[in-house]
Amino acid sequence: MKRIIFFLVTLLSTVVLPTFAQTVQIQRVNPTNWWIGMKNPNIQLLVYGPNAGTLTYTISYAGVKLVKAHTVENPNYAFLDLTISPTAKPGTIQLVGKRGNQTITQPYDLKARDGLPKGQGVTSADFIYLAMPDRFANGDPTNDKFADMADPNADRTNPFYRHGGDLMGGAQHLDYLKDLGATAIWFTPVLENNQPLTNEGGVMRSAYHGYGFTDQYAVDKRFGGNEAYKSFVKKAHATGLKVVQDAVYNHVGINHWFIKDMPSKDWVHQWPTYTNTSYKQQPITDPHASEIDRNVTVNGWFVPFLPDLNQNNPYLANFLIQHAIWTVENFGIDAWRVDTYLYNDMPFMNRCNQALMDEYPKIHIFGESSVNNVVDQSYYVRNKIDFPFKSNQPGGLDFVVYNAITNNALKQKNNDAFPLYETLAQDVVYQDPTKLVTFLDNHDTDRYLSVIGDDFEKYKIGLTWLLTTRGIPSMYYGTEILMKNFKDPSDAEVRRDFPGGFPGDKENKFEAAGRNDRENEAFQFVRKLATYRRDNPVMHSGKLMQYLPQEGIYVYFRYDGSKTVMIATNTSDKEVSCDTTRFAERMKGFTSARNVLTDATLTDLKLVKLPAKTALVLELGK
Amino acid sequence: MKRIIFFLVTLLSTVVLPTFAQTVQIQRVNPTNWWIGMKNPNIQLLVYGPNAGTLTYTISYAGVKLVKAHTVENPNYAFLDLTISPTAKPGTIQLVGKRGNQTITQPYDLKARDGLPKGQGVTSADFIYLAMPDRFANGDPTNDKFADMADPNADRTNPFYRHGGDLMGGAQHLDYLKDLGATAIWFTPVLENNQPLTNEGGVMRSAYHGYGFTDQYAVDKRFGGNEAYKSFVKKAHATGLKVVQDAVYNHVGINHWFIKDMPSKDWVHQWPTYTNTSYKQQPITDPHASEIDRNVTVNGWFVPFLPDLNQNNPYLANFLIQHAIWTVENFGIDAWRVDTYLYNDMPFMNRCNQALMDEYPKIHIFGESSVNNVVDQSYYVRNKIDFPFKSNQPGGLDFVVYNAITNNALKQKNNDAFPLYETLAQDVVYQDPTKLVTFLDNHDTDRYLSVIGDDFEKYKIGLTWLLTTRGIPSMYYGTEILMKNFKDPSDAEVRRDFPGGFPGDKENKFEAAGRNDRENEAFQFVRKLATYRRDNPVMHSGKLMQYLPQEGIYVYFRYDGSKTVMIATNTSDKEVSCDTTRFAERMKGFTSARNVLTDATLTDLKLVKLPAKTALVLELGK
Repeated sequence: MKRIIFFLVTLLSTVVLPTFAQTVQIQRVNPTNWWIGMKNPNIQLLVYGPNAGTLTYTISYAGVKLVKAHTVENPNYAFLDLTISPTAKPGTIQLVGKRGNQTITQPYDLKARDGLPKGQGVTSADFIYLAMPDRFANGDPTNDKFADMADPNADRTNPFYRHGGDLMGGAQHLDYLKDLGATAIWFTPVLENNQPLTNEGGVMRSAYHGYGFTDQYAVDKRFGGNEAYKSFVKKAHATGLKVVQDAVYNHVGINHWFIKDMPSKDWVHQWPTYTNTSYKQQPITDPHASEIDRNVTVNGWFVPFLPDLNQNNPYLANFLIQHAIWTVENFGIDAWRVDTYLYNDMPFMNRCNQALMDEYPKIHIFGESSVNNVVDQSYYVRNKIDFPFKSNQPGGLDFVVYNAITNNALKQKNNDAFPLYETLAQDVVYQDPTKLVTFLDNHDTDRYLSVIGDDFEKYKIGLTWLLTTRGIPSMYYGTEILMKNFKDPSDAEVRRDFPGGFPGDKENKFEAAGRNDRENEAFQFVRKLATYRRDNPVMHSGKLMQYLPQEGIYVYFRYDGSKTVMIATNTSDKEVSCDTTRFAERMKGFTSARNVLTDATLTDLKLVKLPAKTALVLELGK
Repeated sequence: MKRIIFFLVTLLSTVVLPTFAQTVQIQRVNPTNWWIGMKNPNIQLLVYGPNAGTLTYTISYAGVKLVKAHTVENPNYAFLDLTISPTAKPGTIQLVGKRGNQTITQPYDLKARDGLPKGQGVTSADFIYLAMPDRFANGDPTNDKFADMADPNADRTNPFYRHGGDLMGGAQHLDYLKDLGATAIWFTPVLENNQPLTNEGGVMRSAYHGYGFTDQYAVDKRFGGNEAYKSFVKKAHATGLKVVQDAVYNHVGINHWFIKDMPSKDWVHQWPTYTNTSYKQQPITDPHASEIDRNVTVNGWFVPFLPDLNQNNPYLANFLIQHAIWTVENFGIDAWRVDTYLYNDMPFMNRCNQALMDEYPKIHIFGESSVNNVVDQSYYVRNKIDFPFKSNQPGGLDFVVYNAITNNALKQKNNDAFPLYETLAQDVVYQDPTKLVTFLDNHDTDRYLSVIGDDFEKYKIGLTWLLTTRGIPSMYYGTEILMKNFKDPSDAEVRRDFPGGFPGDKENKFEAAGRNDRENEAFQFVRKLATYRRDNPVMHSGKLMQYLPQEGIYVYFRYDGSKTVMIATNTSDKEVSCDTTRFAERMKGFTSARNVLTDATLTDLKLVKLPAKTALVLELGK
């Protein structure tokens, strides 16, 4: 008997029962609009509302055809396949849904493309500044909190609560970033996170980090909403800065509207009991792996309050891909950072990346795959290894270089460039290592300056490597003003407010007068190198030749047909007079050099003096 | 004036001057003989003697044709290209050299192939025992030293001198190796090292290690000479053991006969001043490397008394390749360990490997490339990375697994299988990782037991990994009787004599009665695992599936159509009752197991008890 009841319950929850005389309503259509003239003429609308899936849909609009309507387990969803002819005119489509004698009409905007810059990509010519919008600057204190949101709090005295930073705050400091030499800004996610406070180890925390979306088509109103984001991007572009969107495909917030009423049980990865991901990537690439380990890595949940999306569901896959396209088109995004890349379904990621690249050929995509070695890292980007699966991702965050510099070469009392040298020496595994995004720290790690033992000389060496070696450098906010901290006792320690970004701040480190001497020295150091890199193609697009580090001296060159720049770092505690005979292949014919950091001229290149723990950047001359 | 003299001197040393009325003599022909019926019909004879290069050569022998005679800078050399028809008969060719009215006749033997086993290869079905002949056993005290050799010493009280071990000593203990479960013996090089003592850091050292050949066609007479080696191989084969030759192509001893009178200056790598290799492999594989760094790595000398051969010299290349073929054919060698593999010229290595594999299709070749990561390691073997150069080497010594186990997972106070798991998870870079030769230590490293903190429980765990995971396991002599030591103060510490191998030894650890209880336990542990591996194809040829280590427990399976074996190691200090639910993919249908090490039967497989620091090998049953 028990068995029969169980069977019935299972049946009821999976089969659409006749729904006569029920309420019928359309509450949402996603994407919230579309455009004519996109390269891909197909679009699949998600139509949501009570019993929206029980309607029979028709469309009557010149150049737009409803190819197929799909229903799913949950009667509240319909998925409508449309094709939009290039000759269609902008306007408002009427989606007409009928059931019996009921007719529901839902307007749907088909817009002309705005022709503004978008999908410009970031390349090795760029320098990306990463900030958390909640912690960077508060431009509009009226949007700090809303009583109608699941988390109605904002409290700067609480490290785990929202602090009120927003897009207007970001927009107000774009000139600061430009002055620093940045050419792109990457904000951690700005989409709505209408998540409640969550209890993590007895501490209530807000979703100020932004990685738990609750509506893909709404920028969080505490950041200013959709219009503020549009304005922010426009102002960034006008200032000469590109904008990187932080994308999350792997999971959404537990408060996401479609999680509360899922289209089908397979919308998320289901487990008999709650199963967390192992956070270990090896089962994905290991030829000896078990199915269960692979499953747990990819389909286990990241944390209990972030349901893990099942990208094998074709409707969900379309939903996510279309949102990506919509975001670039609507806001004018230039590049795409993908959160927790390796935890996604890889064939889905390829499809999604391809859709973005088809529509925006110059766009750059770089995912976060936290790995320990170049083999594992290469799996998630275009590579030269004959893996059973081939990724099409053009870039990725370079965790191996990060570990080599911050957690090895310069860590605490370490002072040895070899780990960086050794890592770059394995670049052969990548199709194009110059498309990897390098970094010294981020919002999930200890801050760089603390890891390297608060050593200002080493700080400059690591930044010199970052800004002169191959790749697309990115820097976490505050590094330029010597912000530091370990994640102990919590990651809030490495996500402190930028001093001067918030009303009432006693210090304003956005301005030279608000910074102490050392902070100004740091700021100017970054600025000098970043602007030199920006203004000299050899520094970002020239070839790289590196020499085996010897006796603490690591020398490499960036060079092209017109310029040669020598970068020499001495990580040792002793001054070294460096004999340059070994570097003849790159130095032949040059007789002098300009020290890029000091503007001093060197007239004798045979022996180059490298004081203890220093970095030299020398533009060679004849 | 100075300049003109210098020019003349240079000229004199490079140009062959007319040599009328000089002595003419043939002292050597290498190879010392050849065979009919080889797959490659071509052979190039090196003919050496005063003015041997000034002769005009002819051959009159049915089926043998002198295609071309080459002269080189040094008039004492001629290189004769011969083709040998498959229809030629065994016999003695007369090489006739004429100059003016002088005629020199040199007999040269063309033998029938002996049909004995050779080139049998080693595979993952094998277990290789590595020993140093000078330190393993002295079977013939009459050959310990010779007054006519450059180093006339033998003194067991001096760790740096020869101790008298030899091939007869090895032959006397083949039964011991067979009983232990070994299926192949690899002796460090046995070829003549007629090198003088060398001063290394103020200490005089002999070339007992064997890596400085002075004549490729002579086995060192202190090991018994060529006949002793033939007997040794025959006896090994009769005992069921294969023989691995330790080959050195990169360099020879400074006392080598052809170094004393080089065919041409480019026979070795010449440098303006002595240049040592950097011992760093990165410049070979680094796409950003400089030419000079590559040169120093590959063409720098290994040590001052081992001249670095220039394998781009075509005569030298032929000499080395033919010696390899000759050695297999003459002595019956089965596999080829190549010393300092990465320091060789890679196109030469491919050519040499191919020549061996063409002649002996089952032969195995595994080089020593001491590297830190799988990308670098894969470069030197058949791999799945699109390197600009593609190696054809079928195997290699697995330094990455060695480092993972000995220098990481089990080192000192470490107790974590993850480094091994993580390394094997990168096997995707190899064409066939089962052809790599795994090891826990060797004659150039600290001994395994010392590195792991002299911990007998961890000793058993590492040996279990070695003997049950993928690859061809090899073991350094004495590991089975718990020999230990660090290289401090010198590598002689890890090359101590095998107790019982030498006349007058008070202890004889070749026999159970000479070993203490713990040594016997170790011996029996190795024996049990090695024989189980040998006798059960699943253990060496079955697939491998490994599970993510969790809480100190690392579980993997070897399985094929007929058997499944579960290997579970607990590296932690706590007993764990291991829930096997996660391993269902491999354990489904099995209800009992036999503990291979204890022969105990397990009837409940749901929870498997793993005491602190233990290894279980369970053959599953239904």
